Amino acid sequence: MSLKMDAGQLQAFMMQEFPQVSNDFAIDRLAPMEIDLRLKVADRHLRPGGTVSGPSMFSLADCAIYLAVLAMIGPQGLAVTTNGSIDFMRKPAAGKDMIAKCKLLKLGRVLAVGDVLMFSDGMEQPVARASMTYSIPPR
Amino acid sequence: MSLKMDAGQLQAFMMQEFPQVSNDFAIDRLAPMEIDLRLKVADRHLRPGGTVSGPSMFSLADCAIYLAVLAMIGPQGLAVTTNGSIDFMRKPAAGKDMIAKCKLLKLGRVLAVGDVLMFSDGMEQPVARASMTYSIPPR
Amino acid sequence: MSLKMDAGQLQAFMMQEFPQVSNDFAIDRLAPMEIDLRLKVADRHLRPGGTVSGPSMFSLADCAIYLAVLAMIGPQGLAVTTNGSIDFMRKPAAGKDMIAKCKLLKLGRVLAVGDVLMFSDGMEQPVARASMTYSIPPR
Amino acid sequence: MSLKMDAGQLQAFMMQEFPQVSNDFAIDRLAPMEIDLRLKVADRHLRPGGTVSGPSMFSLADCAIYLAVLAMIGPQGLAVTTNGSIDFMRKPAAGKDMIAKCKLLKLGRVLAVGDVLMFSDGMEQPVARASMTYSIPPR
Repeated sequence: MSLKMDAGQLQAFMMQEFPQVSNDFAIDRLAPMEIDLRLKVADRHLRPGGTVSGPSMFSLADCAIYLAVLAMIGPQGLAVTTNGSIDFMRKPAAGKDMIAKCKLLKLGRVLAVGDVLMFSDGMEQPVARASMTYSIPPR
Repeated sequence: MSLKMDAGQLQAFMMQEFPQVSNDFAIDRLAPMEIDLRLKVADRHLRPGGTVSGPSMFSLADCAIYLAVLAMIGPQGLAVTTNGSIDFMRKPAAGKDMIAKCKLLKLGRVLAVGDVLMFSDGMEQPVARASMTYSIPPR
Repeated sequence: MSLKMDAGQLQAFMMQEFPQVSNDFAIDRLAPMEIDLRLKVADRHLRPGGTVSGPSMFSLADCAIYLAVLAMIGPQGLAVTTNGSIDFMRKPAAGKDMIAKCKLLKLGRVLAVGDVLMFSDGMEQPVARASMTYSIPPR
Repeated sequence: MSLKMDAGQLQAFMMQEFPQVSNDFAIDRLAPMEIDLRLKVADRHLRPGGTVSGPSMFSLADCAIYLAVLAMIGPQGLAVTTNGSIDFMRKPAAGKDMIAKCKLLKLGRVLAVGDVLMFSDGMEQPVARASMTYSIPPR
């Protein structure tokens, strides 16, 4: 399986479709069935104490899997998340971006499943883990 | 078990600790081990198509369970989410607030578990379901 | 929505399709979109210490949601679990059956979502909580 | 971090503590924070159609993470699963053992989190994915 969209095309698609959040994210790496997505951490992503909030990490994981799917199937139609699970394991480092390392474990005709490990930039141990299922609309 | 904080105290605590998001939420109902929390939907909560985004629902569920725990144990120390799972089942109604109906299923010494059903205001069928575990710091 | 199979038909279907496990379960109550399913606890369901094991509870939840779906759509085709999440909250009572109280939160054309609370017979507080998604094959 | 128990010690511990299931499993590989655990598939693990059942895979994942934790902390006290999530992605191959490749993502003082990919022996694509949290009793 090969990519139907490259990083530039994905970023352009995001800017058009998700103008509110597209500046939050940057694609660090893209390969078939894989993406590394960076959350450019700003004040609005923080919880008291100054570290990245849970919902911001959920959003990062959700977006990483969505983009990994889109890169494989192209910008046709709207995939939607049907469910997800997330484990918060360590406190993020303060003042650091967060990187999601995402792999698609399944890309079926109707369902896609992705797995994500999230790291504070420069930390070796994962801060959080998430997996999500996307429902792919009929083409 | 009885409440250690009432709705006004919770709202005041939120405003002090989470100034970024406290205006997003309103407490519709509070009882021992239960809370109904309203997400006052604004543009920043929407995804393309104009309905409430997944991360906004995750944030609503997370906040509902957090406040339900806090209402029972009081404002001492910082409980943190250790994990959560969420099912997105229906499209939210456009232009409507979202209500989380939350029950604590367990309030232990170190772990609390809450369950949430989320509804578009006025809709009878749930839009999403979530459960989350909170780790309660030693007192 | 009304039932397409009653408790007797479900039990007969189970005995034919799942002879290995059908004697483990009994239908206590059946209504549209709801079922109460009993795990008749035997030695093979226990973990050290003599209480019901986690995998036995997973199996009970899985079976309850499967039967609730089947009761609504009839015995046509093979629904499969696509994912599930489970929270273990309390120690089960020793020597007691376990009852799953299951509600279908969604019964769509391709996906069904069910929610389950599990109780040791006679205990008021839930032992575990689970939710599962079933993929329904095209008819 | 280094191992406190080797594969032989783990297998002996299992046989003593979990005589009902210890013959179901074999340790293929053990390393600090990692284990490959084999489910020796027998009739009792199958669902109609002859492939490994969901609850059997849940049990495999649960056991793999439990043993990975035990190998690191030694046989002291009883760790219990507090929650888990599982995604079933492909049909298992018929007549094949199933291998769980497990990594501990966190081994804290009170909580451990493990991640598992499960494969039918000889298949390259994962059949299922699971993650579980264990609560570790105070020593």
